[in-house]
Amino acid sequence: MYPKALEELMLDLQRLPGVGTKSAERYAFEMLQWEEEDIVSFAQHVLNVKQQITYCKICGNLSDHKECNICSSDARNKKTLCVVSYPKDIIAIEKAQLYQGVYHVLGGVISTSKGIYPEDLKIDGLLERISQGEIEEVIMAISPTVEGETTSLYLAKLLESYPVEITRIAHGLPMGGQLDYADELTLYKAFEGRLHIK
Amino acid sequence: MYPKALEELMLDLQRLPGVGTKSAERYAFEMLQWEEEDIVSFAQHVLNVKQQITYCKICGNLSDHKECNICSSDARNKKTLCVVSYPKDIIAIEKAQLYQGVYHVLGGVISTSKGIYPEDLKIDGLLERISQGEIEEVIMAISPTVEGETTSLYLAKLLESYPVEITRIAHGLPMGGQLDYADELTLYKAFEGRLHIK
Repeated sequence: MYPKALEELMLDLQRLPGVGTKSAERYAFEMLQWEEEDIVSFAQHVLNVKQQITYCKICGNLSDHKECNICSSDARNKKTLCVVSYPKDIIAIEKAQLYQGVYHVLGGVISTSKGIYPEDLKIDGLLERISQGEIEEVIMAISPTVEGETTSLYLAKLLESYPVEITRIAHGLPMGGQLDYADELTLYKAFEGRLHIK
Repeated sequence: MYPKALEELMLDLQRLPGVGTKSAERYAFEMLQWEEEDIVSFAQHVLNVKQQITYCKICGNLSDHKECNICSSDARNKKTLCVVSYPKDIIAIEKAQLYQGVYHVLGGVISTSKGIYPEDLKIDGLLERISQGEIEEVIMAISPTVEGETTSLYLAKLLESYPVEITRIAHGLPMGGQLDYADELTLYKAFEGRLHIK
């Protein structure tokens, strides 16, 4: 039905998350309209993303240098370490501009059903950083899924013997969310984590 | 916030229809996970789509040869010509496997507000094909928008003097559609185009 080159591009595009045949078709037809130089530059950017982006050797964040912008910044508080599952979690937190400390990327969450065990995560690096003694607080900022909670609890247990404060971000109703639409577990967490308002 | 290579890729991705910052981020992060060889092949396919795909010199359909598969096929009925606005309309019709004739792609619709006039469409080629005398029926299969209707009527007027039958595809309620949700113009067209059922 489609010329071969178009078909191949559409198959590639369908590997992107949430992109089915219809979206892939729209994207491919759109690209057909692009100028030659835009297509060449797009292809180059696709190659660059794999070739130029690496992981920070300290925290595991995405970086185009050996150390990421956050780890190499003097403005960041090195006494507070925030543990996240993925580099994109760092971007979400940085966008909110609420945190001045540094990060550690685990590279996933413990999931026995998917065959991901503690040894598959970057936990050794975390312990090594904490052992150096500068860190005073470790904040678990892992998505509150069953697997995320397992991972947080596992790490909290593991860090018990270290002289650091261990906290986790609050779970509860999202701002703007409606109470009658919240699931039971969220409500449970919201009640459990209730705070004094005066 | 993002490493430069990632930022550049995300900006490119946002040029795709319906892709905002959030989707572009998801796509770019997904590509980061791809194997090197998949990235190289994707970049190549992006280049190919511009370099290898051309337009059929007879009908204007997308093709990787001088003549598209449809125009060069002996199995197609050359006496029936279906006029469409864009190559992707051909794909939609071909998918339905309901039409055995050939096509002609206008390359758009007349739209004075967007500055698209009859001379911007591939109408000369259409008249030339019809002049050759083989074509017996011209089917207008142009989307029933205000601009599409204008284009169909303009062409119908233009073809009056040629010894061909001129038809248009039916407008009415889409199958599975609900009458009480249909707009007034669709209902008007549905009543206007009513057929005897026995």
